[in-house]
Parts: sequence; C-alpha cells; structure tokens
Amino acid sequence: MPKKTSFDVGEFYQHYPRLALIVTARSGEKENAMAAAWHSPISMDPPLFGVAVSHKRLTYQLILESGEFGVCFLGLEKAELIAQIGALKGQEFDKFETFNIARETPVRTSVPLLTDAYVSYECKVEAHYTLGDHEWFVGKIVATHMDEAILNPEGLLDLGRVKPALYLGADRYVTTAPGSQLFVDRGPIRKKFEGDTGGRQKKG
Amino acid sequence: MPKKTSFDVGEFYQHYPRLALIVTARSGEKENAMAAAWHSPISMDPPLFGVAVSHKRLTYQLILESGEFGVCFLGLEKAELIAQIGALKGQEFDKFETFNIARETPVRTSVPLLTDAYVSYECKVEAHYTLGDHEWFVGKIVATHMDEAILNPEGLLDLGRVKPALYLGADRYVTTAPGSQLFVDRGPIRKKFEGDTGGRQKKG
Repeated sequence: MPKKTSFDVGEFYQHYPRLALIVTARSGEKENAMAAAWHSPISMDPPLFGVAVSHKRLTYQLILESGEFGVCFLGLEKAELIAQIGALKGQEFDKFETFNIARETPVRTSVPLLTDAYVSYECKVEAHYTLGDHEWFVGKIVATHMDEAILNPEGLLDLGRVKPALYLGADRYVTTAPGSQLFVDRGPIRKKFEGDTGGRQKKG
Repeated sequence: MPKKTSFDVGEFYQHYPRLALIVTARSGEKENAMAAAWHSPISMDPPLFGVAVSHKRLTYQLILESGEFGVCFLGLEKAELIAQIGALKGQEFDKFETFNIARETPVRTSVPLLTDAYVSYECKVEAHYTLGDHEWFVGKIVATHMDEAILNPEGLLDLGRVKPALYLGADRYVTTAPGSQLFVDRGPIRKKFEGDTGGRQKKG
C-alpha cells in the first residue's frame, strides 16, 4: 500500500480495534466504573495487568486511594452498557444505581465486579506512573472470575460462545469473526529453519 | 453465567483476543523483529504507546541500546509472517533475510518498518520499567506511516478494507466481523441523564 508519513499522529488510537473493558474501583463508600480500551497484560509471573486512566476520572482517585482495581471483560451484546458507563461522569452519577448494574462479590479486594462480564479480575496496584495525560496503573491479578465453559479444550476463549466487545473509536463497537480463525503452527517453522541451513543463521 | 473464582490466574492472557503486532528495533548493525500482543496506547498528548518485551528477547537489548522501537500493525492475511517472526529467535537468525521481509524507510528513527503493515509507528523511548518477567517500554510516537485509504470518513479503521490480525493464543489468529459493527451513541444517554432526574445524581 502507498503510505503517507506523518509527524502529526492524530487520533492514532482509532486506527485499530481494541478490546473494550470496564475498570472499576471503590474507596470507602465511593465506587465507580469506567469504560477503557487502553490496557495490556504485562507479565506472566507474577501476573500483571496494566490500565491507562485519565487523571480527570473519579476512577483515578479511587484507585489511588484504595490501591485496588477491577477489570471486567464484556461481550458485544453489552455494548449498550459499556456506552452507558462511558457516557456519564463518576463525579456526578452513581452509575451502578443509575444503570442498575448487577454485581458479584470480590474475594481478595473490595472492588465492584460486573455480573455481565465473561471474565473479571481483581487487581492490587503494584506500581503506577504518570505518563502524559494518563496514569498507567499496574496491578497484580489476585483473583479471576470466569465461567470456564467459555474456554475451549486448549484453554483459549471459545469465540463460538463469547463475542468479545472491541472498541473502534467514536462510539463504534465490533466483535470477532469466529469463522476467520486461523491456526499457524510455529513448530514446523522452527524445525525447518533450526534443523537445516534454510535460514540466515547468525555466526556465534 | 455461573463463574468460578480462582486465585491461580493461569494463562489469563489467552482469555481474550488481542491485536497482533510486530515490534522492531535496531542498534548499530543489529536489528530484529518480534511478534507481540501485549501493548497499549497510554496518552493522547503527548502520544505515547507502550509495549511489553520479555527480557529474553534480542529486541529488549536493541531497544535498551538504541532508545527506539517500531510498531507495525498487520492484517490477518499476514498471520503466516507474524508466526514466522514469532517462531525464531533474534539471537540465532536474521529474520529480515530469512523471511525476505520488505521494509520501508523510517524518517525520525532508524528502526526497521514492515511494508506489509497497514499502520506503523516510529517511537522514541520516554521511559521503561521492569515489571515482572517483562520490560514495559513507553515510546513517544514520533512518526506514523499509513495508507489513508484504510480510514473511513470518521477517521476510524475501515474494516471492509483491513482485517486486523488478532491473536488468541496458542498460534491461533482471528479478525473482526465488519457486519457485527454497532454504533451506540453516548450523546442521547448523556442528555437523558444529565437533563433530568432519571439518574441517581450525586449531591454536590
């Protein structure tokens, strides 16, 4: 493709779909939920997960105060709920009451967890960094909540059962196409190149 | 769904699809590309993007030495290339030569960029943190390379033109279903609750 080079990166975060999730937090009697698409696993051992939270959000204050946050993954059929949570400010509304959000009981923290989630995490903050206009919170996952029927025998999400909500930007949501699934086995690739001189092997 | 609570989080990073991308780096004559699914935008202004890189990777060394990295987003039709890059170790193979990877010229850094990418970034490291078994590199996006025809008039990725590669884990790739796209406008939600007493508005 002929590409354009730009130094003004624009709305770079709208150039690909990202998994939509709900980040939750509670401090004392105050609690909140926010929609987020900027997040990532960071480490396997210990299990660490990071989320970017704008400094303007009530959730930012609550995570700072409590040292805990919840992460809830929702299906596309819950896009309306994600949009509702994203529409209102936690400083002004109790979103749990306003939208009558069903919740589950956390076991290692006091964060709110959404019953509608297909997977949710309880996280304890291990570190946090001010990076530009967001805070990057790094949490250790101390408990997971999941209906195990959503995993296939290989331990992967069964896309026939769950349609994960992905956020494209500008209030657009999309999900995966199960029929598009490809298996590209790395085993034969490794064997081919490591077993003979097919690759440009570097000199020791 | 009836959920199981677990303190052993297992392969938590395989419980949802994540955008597959290729992270590149060069230091002097050495260069490498690695497949990655752990990454996130972090800040709009300045534009920051983070990637998790295992300490075992050659890419980790190259980014540390050079203070730069590239990020290349590929479509599902390039799943084979992503798997190839993910199959071999940069310490042992020159992946660019082995797989005959076409490249474009960077303008603000010296990182390799893949011609096959639908979008790619050049990043300069702003900060990095050792978090568990990975390094979290935070880069300022200093240039983007994109075929603008892949965006729709709203500036979002046109899923009719690009089928972004998402990684499910265990060598499985999937893409989005353009027909699943939903628009859930937050405007009317805000108006409804902010304009009347429909929501549980907090007392000032």
